[in-house]
Amino acid sequence: MRWGAGDGVEGWSPRIVTTGLGFTPSSGPSPPLSAFFVIPPISIALRADGFGENPFFHCLVAEIIPAPGESQGKEACSYPPCFSSQKPHSSLSFSGSLVVGYGLYYFIYSTWTGRNVYLEDIYVMPQYRGQGIGTKIIKKVAEVALNKGCSQFRLAVLDWNKKAVNLYKFLGAQDLTESEGWLSFRFEGEAMRELAGR
Amino acid sequence: MRWGAGDGVEGWSPRIVTTGLGFTPSSGPSPPLSAFFVIPPISIALRADGFGENPFFHCLVAEIIPAPGESQGKEACSYPPCFSSQKPHSSLSFSGSLVVGYGLYYFIYSTWTGRNVYLEDIYVMPQYRGQGIGTKIIKKVAEVALNKGCSQFRLAVLDWNKKAVNLYKFLGAQDLTESEGWLSFRFEGEAMRELAGR
Repeated sequence: MRWGAGDGVEGWSPRIVTTGLGFTPSSGPSPPLSAFFVIPPISIALRADGFGENPFFHCLVAEIIPAPGESQGKEACSYPPCFSSQKPHSSLSFSGSLVVGYGLYYFIYSTWTGRNVYLEDIYVMPQYRGQGIGTKIIKKVAEVALNKGCSQFRLAVLDWNKKAVNLYKFLGAQDLTESEGWLSFRFEGEAMRELAGR
Repeated sequence: MRWGAGDGVEGWSPRIVTTGLGFTPSSGPSPPLSAFFVIPPISIALRADGFGENPFFHCLVAEIIPAPGESQGKEACSYPPCFSSQKPHSSLSFSGSLVVGYGLYYFIYSTWTGRNVYLEDIYVMPQYRGQGIGTKIIKKVAEVALNKGCSQFRLAVLDWNKKAVNLYKFLGAQDLTESEGWLSFRFEGEAMRELAGR
C-alpha cells in the first residue's frame, strides 16, 4: 500500500469531490458519512446542494492507492458505489483507491470580512490516525481558503476533544470562545417549529 | 411612518434580497454592512456569491414604509443606491422604504443532519430596537429553515451580549457551548498563510 501521488500535496491525494462522493467510511464510530446516503431527507438535500455545477459544500478526501497486485482485503470495492444503498459500504472511491479520511467544508459570509471557509467536519479512520493525515487535510483547506480570497478559516471543536483542540492550537488557530467569548447557539425541533409558527 | 405590509409576516416586510442589496445602515456602531460595498476584495466576493441565480447567502431586510407625504428627513434616498460608492449611504432600499434591520444567513451542511441554516448576522438600528424587529427576523429565518427542510438553525453570540443571549434562550435556542462544550476556532492571517505553505 502506498500514498497516492495526488495533486501537489505531499504524500496523499486530496480530491475535491463535486460530482460524486462514492464512499462511506467503513469503520470508526463517527461521523457517519453514510448518513449522506441512507437517510432520505438528508441525502436528498445533500445531493442537491453538493453535487452540481455550483455546489454549496465541498469534500476533500485522503486516499491510499494500493500497490500493483496488492489486495484491499476487507476493503474490497463494491463498485458501483453506494449512492442508493441502504447499508454501509466500503471506503473505496470511484477510482478504486482506499479513502481513509475526509474534510467537508463550505464557504461562509461575514458582513465584516466577506467570504470565508468553514470546515464542518474532519475525519480520519482510526487505523490511519497519528500519521498527519488530519493536518494535511487542514492545510489543504487553508490553501483552498487563500485561493478563494478568504481571510479566515473557521471550525468548531468539542472541549473534551483535547487531541483536536491541541492540534488546532499547535497549527495556529485561536480559540475564539476563550479569547472573545463566542458561544454557539442552536434552534431545533419543537423550538424551531414554534418560532416559525407551526 | 408605518410598517410595511410585507409578505405575510405580521407587521413588517422582510424581503429576501438576492438581486441587490442597495442599502447600508446609516447609524449604529456595528456591523458595517457598508463593508459589503466599500472594501473591494470583500465587496467583490460578496457580490459574486450573493447576487445571482444561485446565491450562497441571503439577506432579509426589515423596512419601514413612510406614510404618503411623510418625509424621511436625514434618511433621504440617495438613489440609485450605493453599490459602487466609497462612502456610507442612507438606509433606503430600492423601493424607497427605510431599512431598519437585517438578518444575513446562509445554508450549512452537516454529515449528521444535512442542510441547515446559519444566521451569521442580525442587526437592528439602535433607534428601532425594543420593538420586536429582531425577534421577527429570527422567526422569519426559522420559517426559511423549515421551508428548506432544515432541522437546525444555528447562530453564534458573544457572551457579554446578555440581551441577545437572553433573547435567543427565551425563543428556545440551546447554548451548545454550555451544554455540549462546543468551542469556536479560527485560523487567519499569518497562521493561515503558514498553514497553506505561503
